[in-house]
Amino acid sequence: MLLLTEEPAGPEVTRLAAMAGKYKVFLVMGVIEREGYTLYCSVLFFDPLGRYLGKHRKLMPTALERIIWGFGDGSTIPVYDTPLGKIGALICWENKMPLLRTALYGKGIEIYCAPTADSRPVWQASMTHIAMEGGCFVLSANQFCRRQDYPPPSEYAFAGLGEEPSPDTVVCPGGSVIISPSGEVLAGPNYDGEALITADLDMGEIVRAKFDFDVVGHYSRPEVLSLVVDDQPHRPVSFTSAAEKAPAAKSDGTAKP
Amino acid sequence: MLLLTEEPAGPEVTRLAAMAGKYKVFLVMGVIEREGYTLYCSVLFFDPLGRYLGKHRKLMPTALERIIWGFGDGSTIPVYDTPLGKIGALICWENKMPLLRTALYGKGIEIYCAPTADSRPVWQASMTHIAMEGGCFVLSANQFCRRQDYPPPSEYAFAGLGEEPSPDTVVCPGGSVIISPSGEVLAGPNYDGEALITADLDMGEIVRAKFDFDVVGHYSRPEVLSLVVDDQPHRPVSFTSAAEKAPAAKSDGTAKP
Amino acid sequence: MLLLTEEPAGPEVTRLAAMAGKYKVFLVMGVIEREGYTLYCSVLFFDPLGRYLGKHRKLMPTALERIIWGFGDGSTIPVYDTPLGKIGALICWENKMPLLRTALYGKGIEIYCAPTADSRPVWQASMTHIAMEGGCFVLSANQFCRRQDYPPPSEYAFAGLGEEPSPDTVVCPGGSVIISPSGEVLAGPNYDGEALITADLDMGEIVRAKFDFDVVGHYSRPEVLSLVVDDQPHRPVSFTSAAEKAPAAKSDGTAKP
Amino acid sequence: MLLLTEEPAGPEVTRLAAMAGKYKVFLVMGVIEREGYTLYCSVLFFDPLGRYLGKHRKLMPTALERIIWGFGDGSTIPVYDTPLGKIGALICWENKMPLLRTALYGKGIEIYCAPTADSRPVWQASMTHIAMEGGCFVLSANQFCRRQDYPPPSEYAFAGLGEEPSPDTVVCPGGSVIISPSGEVLAGPNYDGEALITADLDMGEIVRAKFDFDVVGHYSRPEVLSLVVDDQPHRPVSFTSAAEKAPAAKSDGTAKP
Amino acid sequence: MLLLTEEPAGPEVTRLAAMAGKYKVFLVMGVIEREGYTLYCSVLFFDPLGRYLGKHRKLMPTALERIIWGFGDGSTIPVYDTPLGKIGALICWENKMPLLRTALYGKGIEIYCAPTADSRPVWQASMTHIAMEGGCFVLSANQFCRRQDYPPPSEYAFAGLGEEPSPDTVVCPGGSVIISPSGEVLAGPNYDGEALITADLDMGEIVRAKFDFDVVGHYSRPEVLSLVVDDQPHRPVSFTSAAEKAPAAKSDGTAKP
Amino acid sequence: MLLLTEEPAGPEVTRLAAMAGKYKVFLVMGVIEREGYTLYCSVLFFDPLGRYLGKHRKLMPTALERIIWGFGDGSTIPVYDTPLGKIGALICWENKMPLLRTALYGKGIEIYCAPTADSRPVWQASMTHIAMEGGCFVLSANQFCRRQDYPPPSEYAFAGLGEEPSPDTVVCPGGSVIISPSGEVLAGPNYDGEALITADLDMGEIVRAKFDFDVVGHYSRPEVLSLVVDDQPHRPVSFTSAAEKAPAAKSDGTAKP
Repeated sequence: MLLLTEEPAGPEVTRLAAMAGKYKVFLVMGVIEREGYTLYCSVLFFDPLGRYLGKHRKLMPTALERIIWGFGDGSTIPVYDTPLGKIGALICWENKMPLLRTALYGKGIEIYCAPTADSRPVWQASMTHIAMEGGCFVLSANQFCRRQDYPPPSEYAFAGLGEEPSPDTVVCPGGSVIISPSGEVLAGPNYDGEALITADLDMGEIVRAKFDFDVVGHYSRPEVLSLVVDDQPHRPVSFTSAAEKAPAAKSDGTAKP
Repeated sequence: MLLLTEEPAGPEVTRLAAMAGKYKVFLVMGVIEREGYTLYCSVLFFDPLGRYLGKHRKLMPTALERIIWGFGDGSTIPVYDTPLGKIGALICWENKMPLLRTALYGKGIEIYCAPTADSRPVWQASMTHIAMEGGCFVLSANQFCRRQDYPPPSEYAFAGLGEEPSPDTVVCPGGSVIISPSGEVLAGPNYDGEALITADLDMGEIVRAKFDFDVVGHYSRPEVLSLVVDDQPHRPVSFTSAAEKAPAAKSDGTAKP
Repeated sequence: MLLLTEEPAGPEVTRLAAMAGKYKVFLVMGVIEREGYTLYCSVLFFDPLGRYLGKHRKLMPTALERIIWGFGDGSTIPVYDTPLGKIGALICWENKMPLLRTALYGKGIEIYCAPTADSRPVWQASMTHIAMEGGCFVLSANQFCRRQDYPPPSEYAFAGLGEEPSPDTVVCPGGSVIISPSGEVLAGPNYDGEALITADLDMGEIVRAKFDFDVVGHYSRPEVLSLVVDDQPHRPVSFTSAAEKAPAAKSDGTAKP
Repeated sequence: MLLLTEEPAGPEVTRLAAMAGKYKVFLVMGVIEREGYTLYCSVLFFDPLGRYLGKHRKLMPTALERIIWGFGDGSTIPVYDTPLGKIGALICWENKMPLLRTALYGKGIEIYCAPTADSRPVWQASMTHIAMEGGCFVLSANQFCRRQDYPPPSEYAFAGLGEEPSPDTVVCPGGSVIISPSGEVLAGPNYDGEALITADLDMGEIVRAKFDFDVVGHYSRPEVLSLVVDDQPHRPVSFTSAAEKAPAAKSDGTAKP
Repeated sequence: MLLLTEEPAGPEVTRLAAMAGKYKVFLVMGVIEREGYTLYCSVLFFDPLGRYLGKHRKLMPTALERIIWGFGDGSTIPVYDTPLGKIGALICWENKMPLLRTALYGKGIEIYCAPTADSRPVWQASMTHIAMEGGCFVLSANQFCRRQDYPPPSEYAFAGLGEEPSPDTVVCPGGSVIISPSGEVLAGPNYDGEALITADLDMGEIVRAKFDFDVVGHYSRPEVLSLVVDDQPHRPVSFTSAAEKAPAAKSDGTAKP
Repeated sequence: MLLLTEEPAGPEVTRLAAMAGKYKVFLVMGVIEREGYTLYCSVLFFDPLGRYLGKHRKLMPTALERIIWGFGDGSTIPVYDTPLGKIGALICWENKMPLLRTALYGKGIEIYCAPTADSRPVWQASMTHIAMEGGCFVLSANQFCRRQDYPPPSEYAFAGLGEEPSPDTVVCPGGSVIISPSGEVLAGPNYDGEALITADLDMGEIVRAKFDFDVVGHYSRPEVLSLVVDDQPHRPVSFTSAAEKAPAAKSDGTAKP
């Protein structure tokens, strides 16, 4: 992750966009975003033309995060309809929220990105479950980092590590993984160091999986169970003169990049 | 029937609409519709101006259909108030559902379309009964097709036909029929091959039949027997920003095309 | 009476409303109403501003009427609270239904209209009785018409008249009458031909009559005799999306025009 | 009428019963009944075998009567199923109560007795109306009496008569009448003096009248209008040890004499 | 059909019950029932032990019937759970009422009796349809009768037959039929004269038919389409003391005979 | 699983209840239930006193199941508040429905039973995920059975097994498992044959897990994501007289056994 010292319109965003354009990739990246004096745990989306597409803000921070981070709302749960497929993301433990995942399923997500800081084996079980539940590819990226990747001791205390660890100590061991809609692990999980993991995604897998279980289609029971997502932006103070018309979403909830 | 590879807004729909406009007919056609990754057995309606009016989704698939098809809800049981009369449709075996038929009667259906894949003689008895029960004209279209109308063997298995049938084998023998509100067969049933069957409909027949038996008028007993139709759309996930205002129905449940 | 060829929203209603407005009268008129394919024997109400107020549908047709007419329900037994007094109506023989009259008394009717086709002397006895029973003014209008007011013989059979009557034969001799709450005949009964009968109504008569006998007040015994009126509309089929909010009645069951 | 100085079990009742037996008539007679220190306006029933059958107590006294009379309840509205037909009675102005009359209709009354003190012409209109409304024979008896039939002046004041009337002055002029279910006056009204009026009742008239209008049969709408009659006796004080089992009524509410 | 001159407790009912007992059959018979002064078109049920089980009253009379017949309510739509299967009945044209049939389906009817006076071929189509719609056996009995089976001319007019027919003229040609749940005609239709038609009913046919189409089971959509049956008795007048406790129905709406 | 040949009130249920009482256990068991002519995939609950508590009906059958099984509704998703904790169940693939699981979380489920027929390794991932997502113990029971446990070949076809398997062939290999709220596997998965697996459940684990992630508590965002569960029973036909008062649920949606 990257610590943004400015809002998404700042220089870090510009630089990330340029990198996406240079390497002609869709870039989905977890960051710390600042708006005013509050920080948000966010995911930024960029396209191969070097454009910043938008962001998802973590809807509910976890544990100690809540002390210093703000809370997202329903207006930043995007799914982008790209030539690769429909791309969206949840970050870290909010992936455990079944209603939030269902909001993404309702938007037709096909490439489900799950940047995280959870490197426990049980995280892998959740990724496998989500791939099958949603009938989508799950790409979960976790950072691999050592003590030396962070600033010197006086600024940071590494809780639970006792005395100051050595510079080579692995602080977060990674575990990035790619899983198919049928629950097959296509790449990873990698705990061995910094790495780039890749897989060819056969989008037909989605169709085949959905024939068996379409969580928002034939295997739903909307008369009995209906989820309402308030995806309007909510602001503590809003000014009538500044009412921004949000760009109209398509009827399936996705947005064209 | 036609296999739609896109949602109603796709190219097949555009082409069907153009054909309705070219020949200046109301076109009511059974199709397989796809939304997301779920298929629906649907009926599409087009008008002589070449406009797509809307659709009915089969409320309850039959037998093996249920494995691969989704379930309609009460929001897609339209009756269109056209210059020819009030037109609606149920598809195949859902025509056997008495409460569903009564929903159409409650909307004042006059031209009742029943596309089907059932070519048994007892289907004809049901069509005659429905015409008299509803006091409406019944137009039931069934496809006539031979083995050669389908792709080669490796892709399709024709259940119950034993070994691969010859190209000329009749797979579905048709039986399209037009019946008056008094139960008189005006055209068909035709089992002889591809055909266009036609009849002049004397709409005064409806009045005369309803004088004897008006299923939702003087021959009803609403204090004793009342049917409630939930015709709201039900979706597993709905987004407040995409709340589409459905076009207001007239008080008799019909919609102007 | 007038044969409506359209529902209350049709051109005949518009025309009647215009006439009420032109002559600045409350117009209460028996009609044959059509909804869908069923006819109802109804009374329409108009005000001096030329507005259609609403209707009463005959709750129970009489004898041969039942073959071709539908049945009203408890939702169309209105009493309108007008500057002239509280106006309501029952039509023809349903005036003989004691529970139905009591429903109107319960709504505080003061000007009780009784359009009818019954020209027998005993009808006058009932009108006198009702005026005293209900403590209200009774205005009973009956048509005066001759054979020549109807289409030629081939379309109509005048039962009980033997051979085709001459054009001047009186088919219905009228008998319109206005009676006070004390049973005094204020105008009519007129059997002499087409006529307009009028009377000045001293509303204080109602008070004086009710001092003696208040059918829903001091002369009732509700612990022993209680009438329950189901005034909800009953429909054979109702659609949740078209749930029409009926205009809220006042607590005494009347409606402001 | 007769002033009873004792309860029904007293000597006056015994004497009346003997007279009914002697003349072999059903005797239905208005009386003033005393129970404890309260008086009731009641109707007594006797049969040709000289038996006292029971009583009806006026449910609601009229005007000044309320000062000195008690109120009946729903337990004394009998209809007796006799060889002559089903006999019941209401007394004086309670005949104007539509719900109370309907209670008698619900019990199948065929011979409706209406002893009264009302000699006005409008009373005749009500009797005619009731005969047609209920499809029953109406027998209304009113007393013919002169000043000399009452005690001397010092005890009674004849209100509204100014100075003491002469002994021959007619205080109540009678007006007894018998009316058929079709509204035909069969005997009376007699205002000429004491008299016995009689008529042969063709009970088939009831059937013919009910074919046209059966107030509690085919011309009722019980789902819309339903009358509930609490016919349990109500006493201000009741003792558990004295709970009398009322004789079981037949399901149509009548009792065998 | 039989003209009952007394209520169900009368001698005709006793005689029919004795016949059912003598021949050890379930007897389901259309009759004209009298209650008070109103007639009902009813079906009576008897069991092989010679017991009268109860009745169904035609909910809505047809055409001219409405002049002289009363209207049933929802309290007399019985289905009896007998050793032969669950037996119920609708009479004549009310069989065309889809909501009423569905009430019987909801009670689990297996042997559906349809006594009728309709001998047209289209009646057969309805019987076939109902058998398949309800997944039940349909037994429709129609009378075969000649002019001589009725009283002499002066009492009866045979509408539409022109001049008085000869004694041998067939007035109603029958057409009794028995149909299986799959629509197969097991016996009849017989138009040749008085006859007894019989069939062995393989109750397993019901199961097999319901696997395909269970109108109130797996092929219903109760969240979208729900029928409410008011099966309380409705009476214009009810007396609290005569409140008869109806025998408790089982939860599936059937009653044990 | 057990094939019930009768409704829950039948002898199989009685026998199961007796076994639960004999061994003093809570018994949660997947069965095939029959109501009328439709089958349901259900879970039955029994308590240590030998009482049948109630049932859950599978909300959405899977694949071929849909041909022969009915659909549950929201009225049979019970959670029982027992001395052991709050017990509920979903059966087989409906465990993959995130909204349905959330309904159970909303009722406070602590002991989540998941009888299944899915023996694939990915099923284990879902069980681990659900335990952590819901903060509950998950007990998933799968049957272990061989070919010889089923009737001879002619009655059953084992799809996908090619030629008739030998009697010892394992048809379903089991895989029953017990998992703690933190995702720890406490017992199983067992694929070795028939077995009884057990674990001591430390209910304090639930508290500790919910401190981190409470799916319906501090880790929910109800303003943004709200699930509506229609838990009313839906029936195609309902009778007003048989309106069964459902036992009142506690405000948290659970029921006391």
